[in-house]
Amino acid sequence: MASSESVKTVISKEETGLTHECGVFGCVATGEWPTQIDVAQVICLGLVALQHRGQESAGIVTSEGNNAKAFRVHKGMGMISNVFSDDSMKKLRGNLGIGHTRYSTSAASEEVNCQPFVVHTAHGALAVAHNGEIVNCGSLRKMVLGRGVGLSTHSDSELITQALCLNPPEGEVNGPDWPARIKHLMQLAPLSYSLVIMQKDRIYGVRDPYGNRPLCIGKIVPLKLTNGNKNEDEMEEGWVISSESCGFLSIGARYEREVAPGEIVEMTKDGIKTIGIVERPNAKPQAFCIFEYVYFARSDSIFEGQMVYSVRMQCGRVLAREAHVNADIVSSVPESGTAAAHGFSRESKIPFAEVLCKNRYVGRTFIQPSTRLRQLGVAKKFGALSENVLGKKLVLVDDSIVRGNTIGPIIKLLRDAGAKEVHVRVASPPLLYPCYMGINIPTREELIANKLDPLKLAKHVGADSLAYLSVEGLVQAVRYRIAEKNASKVGHCTACLTGNYPEKLEW
Amino acid sequence: MASSESVKTVISKEETGLTHECGVFGCVATGEWPTQIDVAQVICLGLVALQHRGQESAGIVTSEGNNAKAFRVHKGMGMISNVFSDDSMKKLRGNLGIGHTRYSTSAASEEVNCQPFVVHTAHGALAVAHNGEIVNCGSLRKMVLGRGVGLSTHSDSELITQALCLNPPEGEVNGPDWPARIKHLMQLAPLSYSLVIMQKDRIYGVRDPYGNRPLCIGKIVPLKLTNGNKNEDEMEEGWVISSESCGFLSIGARYEREVAPGEIVEMTKDGIKTIGIVERPNAKPQAFCIFEYVYFARSDSIFEGQMVYSVRMQCGRVLAREAHVNADIVSSVPESGTAAAHGFSRESKIPFAEVLCKNRYVGRTFIQPSTRLRQLGVAKKFGALSENVLGKKLVLVDDSIVRGNTIGPIIKLLRDAGAKEVHVRVASPPLLYPCYMGINIPTREELIANKLDPLKLAKHVGADSLAYLSVEGLVQAVRYRIAEKNASKVGHCTACLTGNYPEKLEW
Amino acid sequence: MASSESVKTVISKEETGLTHECGVFGCVATGEWPTQIDVAQVICLGLVALQHRGQESAGIVTSEGNNAKAFRVHKGMGMISNVFSDDSMKKLRGNLGIGHTRYSTSAASEEVNCQPFVVHTAHGALAVAHNGEIVNCGSLRKMVLGRGVGLSTHSDSELITQALCLNPPEGEVNGPDWPARIKHLMQLAPLSYSLVIMQKDRIYGVRDPYGNRPLCIGKIVPLKLTNGNKNEDEMEEGWVISSESCGFLSIGARYEREVAPGEIVEMTKDGIKTIGIVERPNAKPQAFCIFEYVYFARSDSIFEGQMVYSVRMQCGRVLAREAHVNADIVSSVPESGTAAAHGFSRESKIPFAEVLCKNRYVGRTFIQPSTRLRQLGVAKKFGALSENVLGKKLVLVDDSIVRGNTIGPIIKLLRDAGAKEVHVRVASPPLLYPCYMGINIPTREELIANKLDPLKLAKHVGADSLAYLSVEGLVQAVRYRIAEKNASKVGHCTACLTGNYPEKLEW
Amino acid sequence: MASSESVKTVISKEETGLTHECGVFGCVATGEWPTQIDVAQVICLGLVALQHRGQESAGIVTSEGNNAKAFRVHKGMGMISNVFSDDSMKKLRGNLGIGHTRYSTSAASEEVNCQPFVVHTAHGALAVAHNGEIVNCGSLRKMVLGRGVGLSTHSDSELITQALCLNPPEGEVNGPDWPARIKHLMQLAPLSYSLVIMQKDRIYGVRDPYGNRPLCIGKIVPLKLTNGNKNEDEMEEGWVISSESCGFLSIGARYEREVAPGEIVEMTKDGIKTIGIVERPNAKPQAFCIFEYVYFARSDSIFEGQMVYSVRMQCGRVLAREAHVNADIVSSVPESGTAAAHGFSRESKIPFAEVLCKNRYVGRTFIQPSTRLRQLGVAKKFGALSENVLGKKLVLVDDSIVRGNTIGPIIKLLRDAGAKEVHVRVASPPLLYPCYMGINIPTREELIANKLDPLKLAKHVGADSLAYLSVEGLVQAVRYRIAEKNASKVGHCTACLTGNYPEKLEW
Repeated sequence: MASSESVKTVISKEETGLTHECGVFGCVATGEWPTQIDVAQVICLGLVALQHRGQESAGIVTSEGNNAKAFRVHKGMGMISNVFSDDSMKKLRGNLGIGHTRYSTSAASEEVNCQPFVVHTAHGALAVAHNGEIVNCGSLRKMVLGRGVGLSTHSDSELITQALCLNPPEGEVNGPDWPARIKHLMQLAPLSYSLVIMQKDRIYGVRDPYGNRPLCIGKIVPLKLTNGNKNEDEMEEGWVISSESCGFLSIGARYEREVAPGEIVEMTKDGIKTIGIVERPNAKPQAFCIFEYVYFARSDSIFEGQMVYSVRMQCGRVLAREAHVNADIVSSVPESGTAAAHGFSRESKIPFAEVLCKNRYVGRTFIQPSTRLRQLGVAKKFGALSENVLGKKLVLVDDSIVRGNTIGPIIKLLRDAGAKEVHVRVASPPLLYPCYMGINIPTREELIANKLDPLKLAKHVGADSLAYLSVEGLVQAVRYRIAEKNASKVGHCTACLTGNYPEKLEW
Repeated sequence: MASSESVKTVISKEETGLTHECGVFGCVATGEWPTQIDVAQVICLGLVALQHRGQESAGIVTSEGNNAKAFRVHKGMGMISNVFSDDSMKKLRGNLGIGHTRYSTSAASEEVNCQPFVVHTAHGALAVAHNGEIVNCGSLRKMVLGRGVGLSTHSDSELITQALCLNPPEGEVNGPDWPARIKHLMQLAPLSYSLVIMQKDRIYGVRDPYGNRPLCIGKIVPLKLTNGNKNEDEMEEGWVISSESCGFLSIGARYEREVAPGEIVEMTKDGIKTIGIVERPNAKPQAFCIFEYVYFARSDSIFEGQMVYSVRMQCGRVLAREAHVNADIVSSVPESGTAAAHGFSRESKIPFAEVLCKNRYVGRTFIQPSTRLRQLGVAKKFGALSENVLGKKLVLVDDSIVRGNTIGPIIKLLRDAGAKEVHVRVASPPLLYPCYMGINIPTREELIANKLDPLKLAKHVGADSLAYLSVEGLVQAVRYRIAEKNASKVGHCTACLTGNYPEKLEW
Repeated sequence: MASSESVKTVISKEETGLTHECGVFGCVATGEWPTQIDVAQVICLGLVALQHRGQESAGIVTSEGNNAKAFRVHKGMGMISNVFSDDSMKKLRGNLGIGHTRYSTSAASEEVNCQPFVVHTAHGALAVAHNGEIVNCGSLRKMVLGRGVGLSTHSDSELITQALCLNPPEGEVNGPDWPARIKHLMQLAPLSYSLVIMQKDRIYGVRDPYGNRPLCIGKIVPLKLTNGNKNEDEMEEGWVISSESCGFLSIGARYEREVAPGEIVEMTKDGIKTIGIVERPNAKPQAFCIFEYVYFARSDSIFEGQMVYSVRMQCGRVLAREAHVNADIVSSVPESGTAAAHGFSRESKIPFAEVLCKNRYVGRTFIQPSTRLRQLGVAKKFGALSENVLGKKLVLVDDSIVRGNTIGPIIKLLRDAGAKEVHVRVASPPLLYPCYMGINIPTREELIANKLDPLKLAKHVGADSLAYLSVEGLVQAVRYRIAEKNASKVGHCTACLTGNYPEKLEW
Repeated sequence: MASSESVKTVISKEETGLTHECGVFGCVATGEWPTQIDVAQVICLGLVALQHRGQESAGIVTSEGNNAKAFRVHKGMGMISNVFSDDSMKKLRGNLGIGHTRYSTSAASEEVNCQPFVVHTAHGALAVAHNGEIVNCGSLRKMVLGRGVGLSTHSDSELITQALCLNPPEGEVNGPDWPARIKHLMQLAPLSYSLVIMQKDRIYGVRDPYGNRPLCIGKIVPLKLTNGNKNEDEMEEGWVISSESCGFLSIGARYEREVAPGEIVEMTKDGIKTIGIVERPNAKPQAFCIFEYVYFARSDSIFEGQMVYSVRMQCGRVLAREAHVNADIVSSVPESGTAAAHGFSRESKIPFAEVLCKNRYVGRTFIQPSTRLRQLGVAKKFGALSENVLGKKLVLVDDSIVRGNTIGPIIKLLRDAGAKEVHVRVASPPLLYPCYMGINIPTREELIANKLDPLKLAKHVGADSLAYLSVEGLVQAVRYRIAEKNASKVGHCTACLTGNYPEKLEW
């Protein structure tokens, strides 16, 4: 067959509303060679833990550390479990490696776009994995083409790769000075990316100066099979770098810290060190994507010293104060709204109860529903727990409303099951603006909040009432656990809620 | 390629411990021809709601009602979303049809075993879908072979189909009298099955005399697109019959009732009626599988007039009384233990909190873990919500323990995340005996409860304590909501817990 | 995916005109157990040599000889090289086995129809492979259904299998007397089939009483690795039975003889023997399909003591006498007409020269040609050897004309390449009637000879002249090498040419 | 699944001995827009006719002629019939396009290497298809990498593409002057390639200065549907450019001429013109690959004004003079040796007869043969026409002997069938040296002629005698039809036979 037919079990955009671009992961084994840790397996499990960030394609590239030509590559369309097998894992030998899991923001869902990108350069092999979207990709692309390079794709990631290969202007960089090349690129393109870049014997981890996309570091420590006391000065066995920390425990890694905005770290078999920090232009504030807290990240990940689940619960607490309602039970759309619902319940003292049973086998909408079934409009992804619902006034909490086409059928289902009242509480503010930094937000016309105010939306979806969390409430919840002394250092991008973009856009 | 390579996203047996055989579904459109309801779509959505009962293969057979030869068949290996497409749905025209979703109990996971079985008989086409396992299949098989029939498979379902085709002994049945043939079969094989059997213009729904496997009836009513008052004597648009009621709302059907043990119902375009009830031999008691409540059924399904979720919560309440523990929070292994955990929390007054985040993208264990990762033994399917766990004494509730190899890594994960104590509470009794009625329970040697008592098991899995629900407690919870007057009518099979089988086995 | 997507490299019917149903093959290892010969490999290579008889599906079933339950089966859609792999071959252990390669005559090209058919019977496992078509399948089918058997397919082969399983009427057959069952079947259905039927420890080879389809026997003898003298009383290592003898040399087998019309042979580890011969009803003449000589068989096969290639050459010789033409060269449509062209050349003394180069990579017509390309009407399957053609008067020989839609474009190609005259000579008589004995001949309306006489057909296809071999000429060529004393014993079915069918048809 | 599983029906290297790299094809529609000819279909059929030059992957790129961004691309692994479908053809709209069919010389048989290569450049989109191998690719690659370009593959074709994109050194080329860029490349790399290079509105056809690989031009003329007289001033409808002329008739094109060594032609909707000729360095002689005549090209292709089939016949004639033998018949290994065998027969007056029947369904050796079958050593790809062989002295002609492992089993087969003597005659000289210009010749160690002289080889393969054509004989046959006046202009590369390479190699 001509093109690879990947197994499509991704959840359709129609249902999720938002999609996120990518997850990146890197691992270096330290100490003597050969290493004790299986780098490719660590990366594979690390990617499995980042699978929620992209299910379209995946790839791993490894290096044995001493031979620039010997990168081993395995990439493919589909989920990680479809892309990798025992056979492919065996081939991915190496002492260091990087991986990527991807959700395309464009239509170009093709094998050629699978990451990491690998190229042969005048200074050895180079592999690049990227999460984010280059805001000024137009001018960067023009520069690269103008230098006589042919580009195979429209991907930002190929663009970054070739930009790194280019010989920098006279005087700026000499020879294969990759850190200088990376800094040069960061000055040309300040937003938005987290990158892991591999050479034969090292990995660079790079976060854009605004800190828009997440990136953090973990340390793999030796197994304590006995119940012995902790050894304070134990040697690490390796280092990992990842978009999120959620998979660290499952690979035996300990969360260390975030990569700072603008920071370049270098990981080798001798350890990890910071080799430079690129400042934001004009001392602009940090701009970490606030929707990582609301929607994208896995709830056990840690950003800015706090667990995402706790922030979501706090959003629910603030929401309960901002938009109180008299009800019998607080419930959630599982699983996206459950953390906030627990927070709402605790703050409001209204007991929490499950009201929906999720059919975990429903994937994409694979058949065109008949007219009758479409009119029926019941969410086939959920069943109602009728005995919990019958005759009750419900608060129904969800994390966000994007197009507004999933909550209506859920409300209908609950009413069919006997709910007396259904009050929708949304644990984030209305989505009003597009994102150009790596999030695939629908067009303004598709965002329901641009068409209907909460009152009309409540009527439209069949709710007795509907309220959003305020932007101030969200920011307050996000900063709740950040110590006073650090508060001035953080900064969040709320562009999709407020239209305040960190940088003026090119378009 | 030689054999169809189905997409294997099923959860491996290693992880689930128990597997259930099948889900069956049928639908007849009533009223004028052509019908308004799309029978194949209703069946497809009905099967999606039964997907938890089997992910190995699926099939739908439809009939236009007036032509015995024109059965339309589509079957295949894999999940429903992989088996059916818009194209295949279009071909499944008809006014009635049956469907099946399957988990094989044997190794014979091949396309030839996909159900429904369809055969041409002397009296027209016949299609059969089956959930259960014929306890005396050996003698039935011998009888069928002895009549000069060649059997293509070892499947009980082919056996049932050919047994129905056989000309009955003189005097018993004349010509194509299918009800008499079905009754004859039920006398030959009293246990265990729920069957949907289709002829050109009718569907027979059959539940074995012991009522071991579930089967229930729903009525499809016209859409009320306006907010008008309910019309008491509205005409139905069709009838459905299903292993479970969980999908009824999503197809616009109203739950009507269960098929009684031993009952044969006939569904035609003129409606539904009971055409016979076969008694249990020797007035033995009913034996509805109690593990449907504990484990198999979707929590929004209704058996014996009560919602499965409510029974599970009640199990948690009884468990809290039977096996109290001082703890800071009650939590669950999501999602299997959550209903019971809420019950435990309410009864014990210990607050409920989520402690585990489930990675919904983890399927089968697709790569052989390295030695280090195996020793690490952390559940890669879960992440720990560290801020909810740190320094806490936890009650961790799960629905059952089969092999005991999944709870250990979860406990380790929680300890790594800082849990102070972890007390495991299992909302069902220890599994001690095999099932011969359609449930794929591991061998006695594999059942951990046959090897380790709770004290030793607690130590083995790293728990501070471990307790099961008692058999009496389970029966009490299951009967909690059944009205006194009906209590004598119900009866449950607890063979896997007690060794008391409803019928003496052939082997 | 739902159904197996077989690799479709079969040549489309549109292009070939005729299609043949099947090839059957069987092999028994003799001597001590374990045997030295690899039965599955012998069968696989045997089927490869029969691949021209059917490319739709293939299958092999083996038995270890001592256990009725242990048949090993591998079947699949597609060519043999797609169906079998090293892995599947390893599983096909056994001391005897049968195989099948199939071209469906009906539209039901599905995996369920792959042969050999295997069933479990009251007397052990049974496998059946069939080439041919049961002329009176309607009445046979009615009988089988009437005995209470459900049939899964419309296949003659399943019908034969179940008919063999049925307990014969009282007095005729006792118990598992398979030879008696086979004879009984042959009396019920005298036409047309070659069958290989396997039980646990023996293979029956059966040819219908008319001898309509071919079947022959070969002996596998020990390898002579040294150049020693032939040992007259060498022991055989095994026996093979096959639709054609063409593959015998490549598996180390020596051609022995044909199975006689109506003969049943039994092959066991002790050797081969005739166990019965069923006579034709009413002493009718033999009716071996004459088109096996003309079209179907591989040219190195032997029927009735003569090589097919020699018969085809002889057809060319007779044709040269019947339809002389003055020309510069005799050429052929490769490869189907080449043997006859050489015969034509020798008889006419006109030199043979190749004029067409075949593109062996052209399979099915995979793209709809544009209007221009369709009007162009050039055979993309062939190129013209222009220097051999330029300015020449050609005789162009082909083996047959069915629909008449391939010869026209070839003539156009030759004219475009500069041919002065093109005289078509067809080495078989006009096809006028359908076949009901296993050959998929187009409907009478599609057969060009029913629409156009040779003069009009010549004009239609752009030839300067066109002539067929006469029926008498064909019969003469077929009998040319058969010794006088044997001439009365042979008999050929010419129904598709003359309308004289061996039996009155049921329809 | 991770990587595309292409349908592998290619003939294995083991069996063919030699493999050729690629076929290239281009088409431009002339006249008014929209054009009447379907460019993609013409290319697809053109590639089908070049399929013998590579079966590993195929691709087509089209352009609508007025939009540099709108290249349409379809590429994939496998044969053309597997890569292209009606759907993919419909998407390949355009007024011009290029295509490629590939056989990799390296192990890198991956989708990423499928051609044509397409890149976005500073001067619009660019597509490149390449046949050949850059002899000095090492230095060219170093230059490209040194300019700051990252290369994704080790493919010469990507290298050529990026080399064309590079801004040339000052003073040499200005802006998007593609002809100048092409000339510059040709000076950097004089050997070996035939290229078709597409920009938005034009195709460049390029043949290396040595003329090592073939490339020719055809003119598509309007259809004459009526039998009218030829119109002398008919307008062309388009132009095609192709590695070989063999497919021209089947797409309605007329052979025009070869592209001259070193010539660059430009094809636009206004027609075709030569825009430059690059001379060979140091006035070295032409070096057209002589093995195109012997082995690679389809026999109906035309090189240097003569049909390949005629040259092969002439080789047979010369061989008959050089290596006479007394025999009863001349025969060939079909189909590779048939042309030469006819020549041998005519020259020697010994009659030609077919002795082998080819099984056209045998592809790769898909199963490991058992010890017995391996010892048997019979060619399963062929059957012997026993009646033509029995008791005869044969001359057996083949085109070449590479590893010498296929002729032995054929001889054994013929002896088993009764041949009295078998004299092998090879219509080309012994292969002694590797090729670095695009032909995948085995290593010197694998070439049997380096290990065994004819006498020993005859014994090794079981022949009664064995003789090769001499190098002088081959050159004489190749030049036989070239007019005296043109003889000085031609020149052939015989490096694989003589070790005389056209250029000194880098390695």
